[in-house]
Amino acid sequence: MYHRVSFRDVNLFGDFWEKRQDINREVTMPAIRDRFEQTGRFHAFEMIPLSEGGIKPHIFWDSDVAKWMESAAYILEKHTDNALIAQVDAVVDLIEKHQDENGYFNLYFTVVEPDKRFQRRDDHELYCAGHLIEAAVAYAQATGKTKFLDLMKKYVSCIEKAFVQEHTAAFCTPGHEEIELALYKLYRYTGEKKYLDLALHFINQRGTIENEKSLYNQSHLPVRQQSTAEGHSVRACYLYAAMADLAYETRDEELYNSCKQLFDNIYQKRCYITGGVGSSRHGEAFTVDYDLPNAEAYAETCAAIALAFFASRMQRFSPDPAYADIIERILYNGMLSGVSLDGKSFFYENPLEILHSRRGRNVSVSDPERFPSARRQEVFDCSCCPPNITRFIASVADYLYTYSDDAIYVHQYMSGVANFSIGERAVRISQKTNYPVSGQIDIVAKNIKGMCLAVRIPPWCDDFSIYIDGGKRENQVRDGYLYISAKSEVLSLTLNLSMKPRLIYSDARNAEDAALCALGRGPLIYCMESCDNQIPLRSIQLLSPLQTNEFYNQDLDCIQITARALVVESQTDSGALYYHQPKYRQISSEWIPYYAFANREECDMLVWSRYQIDISKQ
Amino acid sequence: MYHRVSFRDVNLFGDFWEKRQDINREVTMPAIRDRFEQTGRFHAFEMIPLSEGGIKPHIFWDSDVAKWMESAAYILEKHTDNALIAQVDAVVDLIEKHQDENGYFNLYFTVVEPDKRFQRRDDHELYCAGHLIEAAVAYAQATGKTKFLDLMKKYVSCIEKAFVQEHTAAFCTPGHEEIELALYKLYRYTGEKKYLDLALHFINQRGTIENEKSLYNQSHLPVRQQSTAEGHSVRACYLYAAMADLAYETRDEELYNSCKQLFDNIYQKRCYITGGVGSSRHGEAFTVDYDLPNAEAYAETCAAIALAFFASRMQRFSPDPAYADIIERILYNGMLSGVSLDGKSFFYENPLEILHSRRGRNVSVSDPERFPSARRQEVFDCSCCPPNITRFIASVADYLYTYSDDAIYVHQYMSGVANFSIGERAVRISQKTNYPVSGQIDIVAKNIKGMCLAVRIPPWCDDFSIYIDGGKRENQVRDGYLYISAKSEVLSLTLNLSMKPRLIYSDARNAEDAALCALGRGPLIYCMESCDNQIPLRSIQLLSPLQTNEFYNQDLDCIQITARALVVESQTDSGALYYHQPKYRQISSEWIPYYAFANREECDMLVWSRYQIDISKQ
Repeated sequence: MYHRVSFRDVNLFGDFWEKRQDINREVTMPAIRDRFEQTGRFHAFEMIPLSEGGIKPHIFWDSDVAKWMESAAYILEKHTDNALIAQVDAVVDLIEKHQDENGYFNLYFTVVEPDKRFQRRDDHELYCAGHLIEAAVAYAQATGKTKFLDLMKKYVSCIEKAFVQEHTAAFCTPGHEEIELALYKLYRYTGEKKYLDLALHFINQRGTIENEKSLYNQSHLPVRQQSTAEGHSVRACYLYAAMADLAYETRDEELYNSCKQLFDNIYQKRCYITGGVGSSRHGEAFTVDYDLPNAEAYAETCAAIALAFFASRMQRFSPDPAYADIIERILYNGMLSGVSLDGKSFFYENPLEILHSRRGRNVSVSDPERFPSARRQEVFDCSCCPPNITRFIASVADYLYTYSDDAIYVHQYMSGVANFSIGERAVRISQKTNYPVSGQIDIVAKNIKGMCLAVRIPPWCDDFSIYIDGGKRENQVRDGYLYISAKSEVLSLTLNLSMKPRLIYSDARNAEDAALCALGRGPLIYCMESCDNQIPLRSIQLLSPLQTNEFYNQDLDCIQITARALVVESQTDSGALYYHQPKYRQISSEWIPYYAFANREECDMLVWSRYQIDISKQ
Repeated sequence: MYHRVSFRDVNLFGDFWEKRQDINREVTMPAIRDRFEQTGRFHAFEMIPLSEGGIKPHIFWDSDVAKWMESAAYILEKHTDNALIAQVDAVVDLIEKHQDENGYFNLYFTVVEPDKRFQRRDDHELYCAGHLIEAAVAYAQATGKTKFLDLMKKYVSCIEKAFVQEHTAAFCTPGHEEIELALYKLYRYTGEKKYLDLALHFINQRGTIENEKSLYNQSHLPVRQQSTAEGHSVRACYLYAAMADLAYETRDEELYNSCKQLFDNIYQKRCYITGGVGSSRHGEAFTVDYDLPNAEAYAETCAAIALAFFASRMQRFSPDPAYADIIERILYNGMLSGVSLDGKSFFYENPLEILHSRRGRNVSVSDPERFPSARRQEVFDCSCCPPNITRFIASVADYLYTYSDDAIYVHQYMSGVANFSIGERAVRISQKTNYPVSGQIDIVAKNIKGMCLAVRIPPWCDDFSIYIDGGKRENQVRDGYLYISAKSEVLSLTLNLSMKPRLIYSDARNAEDAALCALGRGPLIYCMESCDNQIPLRSIQLLSPLQTNEFYNQDLDCIQITARALVVESQTDSGALYYHQPKYRQISSEWIPYYAFANREECDMLVWSRYQIDISKQ
């Protein structure tokens, strides 16, 4: 078993992530707060009756604000900000003021339908509670202020009474999972076993109640019998994360096996190359194995984040390289695409292709098909993703390290310093890197003599070198990691991962991407946008072996790749749609990181490209 | 201007079409009649009130039966069948019995809502009338029996009164076009100008009535201002066919120009390679230029047939090779796929790809996406296509020839003999061919001395030879035709069109098919089915230049093509969905004619394939 190093014990500095954390703190957080102000989400905590002009809160507004508060707490771990504290405290005061005597707290079920409390399984009540609990734990941890936490403990007592002791609730398990992992956090922070018990109660009941059976919300089977990722993808991954927490805490092997099968099913069969999950907007859901349409991808930002939660919890069982791989995909692609480069606007859905013409195809009917938005929005009616992004980016260093008594795993590469304890040892690990622009990572680990440092060689990298204490070594990669024994107090090493652009292929059973290729550079998946490429993107056939140039794109602050490609030219004389004497022409195709798409004009975008191989070289 | 040779003047014999006409007559016609019996469509003509146990007729049942009667008439042109005559007469007798005194006849608006006659523009009333008129004309022409025709003339008087003289109808133009081309047929057969006038009335009113504006049913603009094919594709093509009829009859250049632009828009930008049209099931409609998705194609059988009607009418203005090309595509692909090889079951939609896994993707929700059926059905609730197929196949020789005073055009190749008059000349043209299996066509034309015989060289053929009166000639193709002057009374020639399989490409703006290829052999478009190919169809990359073998597939009675292809093999050890070290393997891919798909087990199907070119040979 392994322990995770918390982001609280890591200070990041350096280009890529520090820049994003700065934007997150300075731009995104205030932008979300402003939007929440404008839409009445904060105001709703004043619980003004509708009859007195109060705004009708949506059933998930509590969770939107809670995630913003949780984000604030994470930011406060690293930055003193009294104004931010005051803003959070103001909400906490309103919660205190309007919380029921019995501990109950929910906006919708107080202002709109107070007689329906704990009656509607699908109305996000316990989901909102879960996010409030997470925020309260995070805020207590960051500030030492416990009022919020105390209020939520009172609320949990109320929940426990309704669902376990007195069975006054009309349902047994939440329709939208989330509270389970929140309760585990509460247990870990307070040490009070009743919270663990309540989490276990919800998990163990799930899928056993006849009238709550639903594939959509993962209640189709008892959790220990679930082995394929089903239904609403955010709900699913929050559930799986909680299952992993509880399997770890209780050493429940059966539950772990379920988690492992669920993870493998996602990783091997139901996950976009960007780390996105949820292939269908119908139910925002997982579908079937190898069904990963690009232009109609749902791939909600929240689902990618939830999958990272799940994967990182799985890393406490083993350093299976799949976990760090999926987290890296999410970090640099499927999560990061959810927010614009300036930090002000957001994607809820993260398609892998934009076809503008198709979006407007149903010109003659009133029930047009729906396609993902091609432009990030400043606000959504459903605004779960923006504050999920802020809390994720603020705590992104959570994903760097795990350790056991005799080994420390370096899973992700970000400049920064970690200080944490392993038993009596005060360990310090520093990374210095310009990753993902460069693949050189300098690592210095202190006070780990006799231990092993395991540094990850990502599966996309098959050309690397490592220098240990100044000397080149020929270490073997074992299951995705290089294992280096620390012979002295200080271990210093330089890892060079080749950042040469590469073509990536998909399992042929994934019909959408079979016999196509994606372009990757390091952890980044690239895409073409039609504002950089003057011909239809689907007509571009990348040439393999790749012939590329790279340059720094100042506008997008990224490495842009120019790749040789082939295009077929139509016969221009006949005007015919179909023809049989193609003429080929070589062109340069322009590629930018996927996360940077949709930051300029609205245009077509493509990840998976046709390609032509030089057959003679195969 | 040119004249068309009617199928009435042509007798087909020989493999391909005679076989289909036999199945059409012996299997499909009785099968449809049985289905119509079972579903109460014939019974409905007894007009039993619902209160007395009558079946509620659908608003378009009249048209279903009318098309079956029209098919019967076409069959009776060539085959004596007293039983069939009796069946038609029985329906005619019921029409006579239940027709209103004022001439009105419609099942739904008599049995269900008699007070709503001519009140509901979108309820197919005039569409049903149009099909009854077409059937009545055809039946009179085939049998000399005029009762049905007389009844319909009476009905037309009723319509004319309601829409032109007394304006008692609540709308001005039909919501579903069809009656316009039927009225033109009635005019041509009877010579009575009032029918032409009524057709012109509907055409000229269309798009001019403010509260009837609709893109969906081509009422968005006056017809002479329409230049892009819009809305419901069957309605559109029936309208365009009528417009072409009337432009030809009245020498209306403005109307012709509109027809030409509409045709070009379809042919160059909105038509599947199979001749199918209507890219979206939403409205069964044309969408936007170059929007031709394969797996979600609508491409209704009726729309392909309607487009052939339109194209063949355009051939009376000029022998633009696009007209014969689209008709050929429809004949051998997009129409023929609408009926099973045994003649018993039908497709309404004709997709260019079947992806079974995707059809069942929405496992967790109650509002799954809809995909075209992968199995032909014996009957539909909406059964417009089956009797449209029967009337089309029974009259398929309609598409062979046009002529002017000094030239005869041979547009399509089918074994048979045509006898028709040009002025005083009794012309006889016989074709002998095994087309489309073989590309050799022997043509003997009699009594055309001094005229020109123009034989079509299809655009898919760039390798042909021609022997005239036994000697090889080096004629130049001019706009798709070889022009041969007849120096004596009998002109005999042998045309050899190379049937070598070829790759076909699409204009790059057609995103769905850009940088893919289709496989064609003669007029036939081919497809792969997964019952012949053991690996995912989308993973198969055809090798270009093509390397093929052909053999006769006895089960499907067609030429099957084996083509060399490349596949990428997944790394099998890791189980990862994505990888970057592909291994290639050459395989044989199996291709059958598109029209023959879905005649065995239900499985995946693909027309547009990935391909790899041997770059060194370019």
